Parts: sequence; structure tokens; C-alpha cells
Amino acid sequence: MFLYGESREQMFHVAAMMPFTPPPDAKPDHLRELMDEVRAGAEVQRPWNLRLKTPDFLFNPLQSWVEAEQIDLEYHLRRSALPSPGDERELGILVSRLHGYHVDFHRPPWEAHLIEGLEGGRFALYVKVHHSLVDGFSAMRILARTLSPDPNDRDRPLFFSVPPPERAPRTDPAGVQYEAVMSAVREQYSAAKVATRALKRVFDSARAGDHELVTPRQAPKCILNARISQSRRFATQQIELARLKAIAKAASGTLNDVVLALCAGSLRSYLLELNALPAEPLIAMVPVAVRAKDDTGGGNSIGAILANLGTDVEAADERLVTIIESTRHAKQQLQGMSKAAIIQYSAMLIAPSMLQMIPQTAGHIKPTFNVVISNVPGPDHPLYFRGARLEATYPMSIPVHGQALNITCNSYAGSMCFGFTGCRDTLPHLQRLAVYCGEAMDDLERAFQ
Amino acid sequence: MFLYGESREQMFHVAAMMPFTPPPDAKPDHLRELMDEVRAGAEVQRPWNLRLKTPDFLFNPLQSWVEAEQIDLEYHLRRSALPSPGDERELGILVSRLHGYHVDFHRPPWEAHLIEGLEGGRFALYVKVHHSLVDGFSAMRILARTLSPDPNDRDRPLFFSVPPPERAPRTDPAGVQYEAVMSAVREQYSAAKVATRALKRVFDSARAGDHELVTPRQAPKCILNARISQSRRFATQQIELARLKAIAKAASGTLNDVVLALCAGSLRSYLLELNALPAEPLIAMVPVAVRAKDDTGGGNSIGAILANLGTDVEAADERLVTIIESTRHAKQQLQGMSKAAIIQYSAMLIAPSMLQMIPQTAGHIKPTFNVVISNVPGPDHPLYFRGARLEATYPMSIPVHGQALNITCNSYAGSMCFGFTGCRDTLPHLQRLAVYCGEAMDDLERAFQ
Repeated sequence: MFLYGESREQMFHVAAMMPFTPPPDAKPDHLRELMDEVRAGAEVQRPWNLRLKTPDFLFNPLQSWVEAEQIDLEYHLRRSALPSPGDERELGILVSRLHGYHVDFHRPPWEAHLIEGLEGGRFALYVKVHHSLVDGFSAMRILARTLSPDPNDRDRPLFFSVPPPERAPRTDPAGVQYEAVMSAVREQYSAAKVATRALKRVFDSARAGDHELVTPRQAPKCILNARISQSRRFATQQIELARLKAIAKAASGTLNDVVLALCAGSLRSYLLELNALPAEPLIAMVPVAVRAKDDTGGGNSIGAILANLGTDVEAADERLVTIIESTRHAKQQLQGMSKAAIIQYSAMLIAPSMLQMIPQTAGHIKPTFNVVISNVPGPDHPLYFRGARLEATYPMSIPVHGQALNITCNSYAGSMCFGFTGCRDTLPHLQRLAVYCGEAMDDLERAFQ
Repeated sequence: MFLYGESREQMFHVAAMMPFTPPPDAKPDHLRELMDEVRAGAEVQRPWNLRLKTPDFLFNPLQSWVEAEQIDLEYHLRRSALPSPGDERELGILVSRLHGYHVDFHRPPWEAHLIEGLEGGRFALYVKVHHSLVDGFSAMRILARTLSPDPNDRDRPLFFSVPPPERAPRTDPAGVQYEAVMSAVREQYSAAKVATRALKRVFDSARAGDHELVTPRQAPKCILNARISQSRRFATQQIELARLKAIAKAASGTLNDVVLALCAGSLRSYLLELNALPAEPLIAMVPVAVRAKDDTGGGNSIGAILANLGTDVEAADERLVTIIESTRHAKQQLQGMSKAAIIQYSAMLIAPSMLQMIPQTAGHIKPTFNVVISNVPGPDHPLYFRGARLEATYPMSIPVHGQALNITCNSYAGSMCFGFTGCRDTLPHLQRLAVYCGEAMDDLERAFQ
């Protein structure tokens, strides 16, 4: 599906943007020396050495991954720099630009950019990988595994030179992403050769009145659900986890409810300013992990719920209450289902958005939800790369036709890192979403004082 | 044809890379201020405000240019910076990368990048424009027109804000580019809706034995004539014009013959090192302007000749003699033709390379020539942009399937600026061509001492 949908406008690569603070004793040219080290010959481990077998025929039913005979590492690992003053704005512009270009399917589909020239002698790493090779969740795990909790560990290889673990990593039960839900749905229908036939089955099942399938509420029309262009804009926000937890406790909700409330507050301000706020509340699709009623093992099922973002509510505290009620109800529904039903229900939620990825249908199907908001827990302690401290990890995801914005959050070392990835043209001044997200935090704190 | 051939690998945009030395009194943030000025609202003049009518259907027979309703200038004018040390190598890497990305056909198809962080506080301007909007030759003229011969002229607008001249500029009779030849060929066959039908006519005419059509010599097989990938590499060389002129005089050849000899020497060294030098001499296609025998007016016809580059000859002076004889003979042939025959002859030379642009045929047709070498005279005096002196203008052209390398030169203010644009994967370490071009100059000087 990801390869089929790939076009000039829809690019199914995910990325992470990671600013670092170098250690006080860092040499001025430490990034150049790192490149020289790589040029001198670094090993490239799986999956970073895999390329598509038939890159000129992406939707080949016999498509597969093969080891690339030779890897032009200077292509994959690149140096960049920010123009003055090297602030967050310039960093945002550069990574937005980098995120708006295709990966090259004739090579292993990933790129890593070492970005220097950030204020205060800092640097950033932007890593981009096609979703068909590594999903965002696994990529984050791999990346985290290649960093060290010890600032004095100065011998770490770069991520692509770290051998894969002996056993496949288990999915973290505490958090899942959009992509994980889509993977589950895809697996369910892997036997069906034509994607639309599979989707039809989902709709038929819904129409037949399966008791366990709950018809999703209709989301309002919104500029978030337009066709997209090929340019991207990316904005970030970082908020202390303690602030979110205090609000969650005060409102008797979950941390994720507060994340949704911050996104809701931000979206309300943003759309109001554009005079584009729907009268009805925006609906978010939120990937979750739940215990299925027929699951006797300790595992979790991956599903999706629809959350009412309460964007029609003016007061920040009332909006949060609306969200808490909505997610509680949705999760209860999901927990009453069998494992198979959870997947089918999630598939039904996602199906219309999958259909929208087909260019001919884009923009003509009414959205089931307006925006995807994922929250992925990350490491809770600081990580280092050769003494340089990772400041944050901002996830960059995939806008598609009909879903012009994606919000993904990572928690890291006591903070929540928000990544807003959107279409530059459909969503003007998208970076304001990040600013308004910070203001939404202040509003909540004032309301719960 | 340019829109038809556009693909992930073949991108028909041309560009110029122009380094500048700022005046001694330049403020540290003069480029940022320039951007602020643009953001505050700059006018966008024709042709820079035109976009395609049907960008999702490039080969629409009713395709046309329309004025864009709104222009996102921050998209078109961008700031970039070089990582340390900001030398020629880093500049080459950055512009190679920028040249390897598509223009966005949903907007006016051009981009300008202000690149800071060059050694010594210098900066560079990289301007890229799709060939269907402006050919490289016209773009250079427009750019030159927007610069000033006066270093004290500090009020120049940026090139896209300069209104077009009242009358269309005349083609400079002293030099033409590949694109100009192709334009002439296209005009000839504009009535034919299917490009291949037009090409068939050219071949039929050749087979029919038109006396004025000279069958081109067969070029040897060479790595220069492979299928290309989507990545580019760009390298530059600048040599004093006086040095070239001295050799031209000593060998009784033209300046252009010496340009060809420098390219020939460079290609010989480069291919020898790769163990890929054909036993037979490489053949270059060289656009020229000649007086047709039936032309009573003062104008010139645009045509193409094939030059024997003498790459099988070891001695630099003998190689130059071979080139001089070859170009003299070819130009004599051309001058004996009628205007129509010159165009038809040129079309016949180009036809096979046009066919190669069609992906299915790429790499399967024997090349008529191995490389295109264009030499475009530019301004002979220094030019300034708000006091910053233009150091050189390096043209970046279009590699296509079957023609993995393009060499284009511009003369400017007493120097010759060489731009080597190639496919990164087909031609490894392409930047060595620039180094060997400089060494070829030394060799010629030693030979003619």
C-alpha cells in the first residue's frame, strides 16, 4: 500500500529530528571528523543495506527487499548547515525542505543529515527512512538503541553500523502509532491482491450490522482533509512532562488525554485565525493498545479509537473534560471486542483514509476523522552520542491526500516532544500550531489552578 | 518534449551557480536582510510568475502557461548554508544535491538559493529553472541584465522583480547552446503531434540520400552514454581567458577549439583512470551559429557539428590539431547548406539522443555522439549585485538517459567558467573532470611553449 500510494505529493517516509548539545570538550570540527570516519569505511548493517528488487516498478506483486551490492555512504549520510542565526525557525525550514523530497528507491531508502550551525554550537540529526523499510516506531527504537545513557561513552558507531538485535523487538504495549495500526490492518488483508476489494469487505461487514462494529461518528469537513501538494512544513514543541501529568491528575484523565487537549487547543486557535474552524468538533484518530476480551495472554491488541477533540468548546478545562469522556467511552467499546473485531473496527475507521490516498478519490470522500494524533513513549532518561546530549526527538510523519496534518509525540527524558508534519500549501503558517500548542498548555494550567 | 521526458531520473531544469564576493562594508546579516525585504513583498515579473495550466498532466497537448494567482515567494527564494570549511568541495556537494531535486510544476518552476558560509565571508546564488519556462541561454541573459556593472549601485531588485525588456532579446550570434539547437528542431516539427513521427521523417530524409545531409560518424560506446539515475554531481573550473587565447593563436585554431581540447584532455584522463577510455576517439556534439548559403540577411543559423575530440591521441598538441581539423571541416560542411538543411542536419544528429530520452529505448541506441559541449559567451566586464562582485557564472545543464554528462562553459570578465553536470552513479568522482581540465591547460601550455 505504501509503495502503491507513493507519488510526487504522497511520500511515505517517516523521520526523526534530533537536536544535540555537544560536550564542552568537543572539537570545532567534530562533525567533519565523523564524516571522515564514515568515508574511511563504515559497515552498513541490516536493514540499512536493503533496497527494493524492482525500484522502477514499485507496485510489483513480486516486489521484495534485496541486499544492495554496494552502498554509496556519502549519498546516505550528508552534512548540512543552517543559515544565520541558526534558530529553531531556520532548523524547521531546513528539515521541512528535506522532508519534502523523495527517497531514492534505487538505493536503500534512507538518508541521514548532520546539521550544523545551530545556535550555541549545537547540531541536529535528521534521519529519514521509507516506511516500507522501517516503520517510524521501529526506527525510533533502533535509533535509541544506538545512543548511550553514558556521556563518557565516546566510541559509539553511527546507527546504521549497529547490528540488529538477535530477536525482533516486541511492540511496546504502552504506545502505538498510526503505522502500527495500518500494519495490523494490512496483515489482515494480505491475501487480497486488490486493496479496494479488501476495503469493500470491511464496508460490507459494517453494513451487515456486525454487533461489535460501532459506526464511527461523522467528522466535520475541514481544511485538514484536503488534497496535498509536494511541499512539507514541520514545526515542533517541547513541554515538560511534569506539567502534563499535573493536569492529567487534576482532571482525572490520562496523560494521553492531556496530549489530545493540547493538540485540540492548538488546532482551535489555528483554525479560528484562518476562519476555518468547523462548528462541529474535530475528530481525531488515536492509535491505542488495549486488552481484547478474548485475549488470555498478557499481550495487547493494537487498535484505533476516535476522539472528540471538543474544538467547539471555548473553555480549556471543559474541552479537556469532553476529550476525557470521549476517549474513556471509546476505549470501553474496544475492550468489549474480540481481537479480530478490534482489528476490523480499526480497519473500518482507516479504510476511507486509505481510499483517499488513491489520487482519483482524494478529496471526494468525507473523512471519518480529521487528524491522526499518535503518542509514542520514548526513553525516560537522557541519551548521548559520543558525549553529545540528545535534547529531544521530534517525530516527522506522513501527510497524505485527505489528511494534510499529522501530529506525533514522543516522550523523552522528562519532556513531551510534539512534531507537527503538514502540507505547506494546504496549511499556511503551520508553525503557528506549535506556538499555540504551548499556549494551550498555559491555558490548561490557568483553568486548573 | 521536455515535459514528456520528465521523470524521476530525467529532469529538464537548467541552473547557474554564481559565487559572489561581498563589498568590504557588507553587514554580517546582509543576506538575512535581503530575505526580509523579499518577505515584506517583492513583485514577481514575467516569466517568473508563470505556471503550467495542467501540472498533473504534463504531456497535455493543450498544455500552456498561465499566471499563478498567488506566489509563495518563500518557497522560491531560499536560504542555505555550507557546513565547514565552506570550500569549493562543500559548495559542489550542496548544489549537486539541489540540482538533483525536481521543480514543483504546481508553482512557477524555478527556485533560487542564497548560499552563505563560503570561505572568506563569501556567498553564492544558485538559480534553477525548468527548461520549458526559460532556456538556459535566456536565463543567463536575464540574470546578467539584473546585475550592475557599477559596484556602487546598491538598489538592484532581485532578478525575478525586474520587468522583462520591451522587445525579445536577439540570440547572440557568437554562441549557442544545445537547447537552442533543440528549440530550432522542435519548431521545425511543431506541427507533428507525435514526436516519434517527426523523428521518423528525419531518418527517412537521411535514408533518401539528401545530398546536403552528411551521415554522422559513429561514436564509440562509452560509459558516458548509459542510463542515468536521479542523483547529480556538479564540478566547476575557472581558467583565465588569456591563457586559452594564447594557445588558440599558437595553434591557429579558435577559442572554442581550445575549450574542446581542454574537455578532451580532461575526459581522456578521467576515462583512463576508470579503465574506460574507448580505443576510438570520443565524438562531441557542439552547437554552433553559422551563416547559411541562402541567407542574405545578417542573421545566423543555429546548427550542430560533430567534433572528433582526439581522445585516442596522447600528446596534448596533436590532440588539439585533430580537433581543429575536425571542427573546421564540419563548419565548412554546414556553411555549404541551406538554412533548412542546417536544421535538418542538426535534427538528424540529435534525433537518436532524443529517442534515448524515452525510458524504454534508453541505453539501447548507439550514440551519434558521446557528449555535448556548449560554449556560451557572457559579459566581458565584472558585474555586481548591490556591491557584491560576481566571481563566476557556472552553468548547470541536463544529463539525460544516454547522455550522462553535459559540459557547458560561460565566459565572464576575462575568464572561462566550466560547468560539468553529470549523473552521480554513472560517472563516479565526476569532480575529477574539473581537476583534469585544469591539468589539460597546463599540458597544452607546456606543449606550445
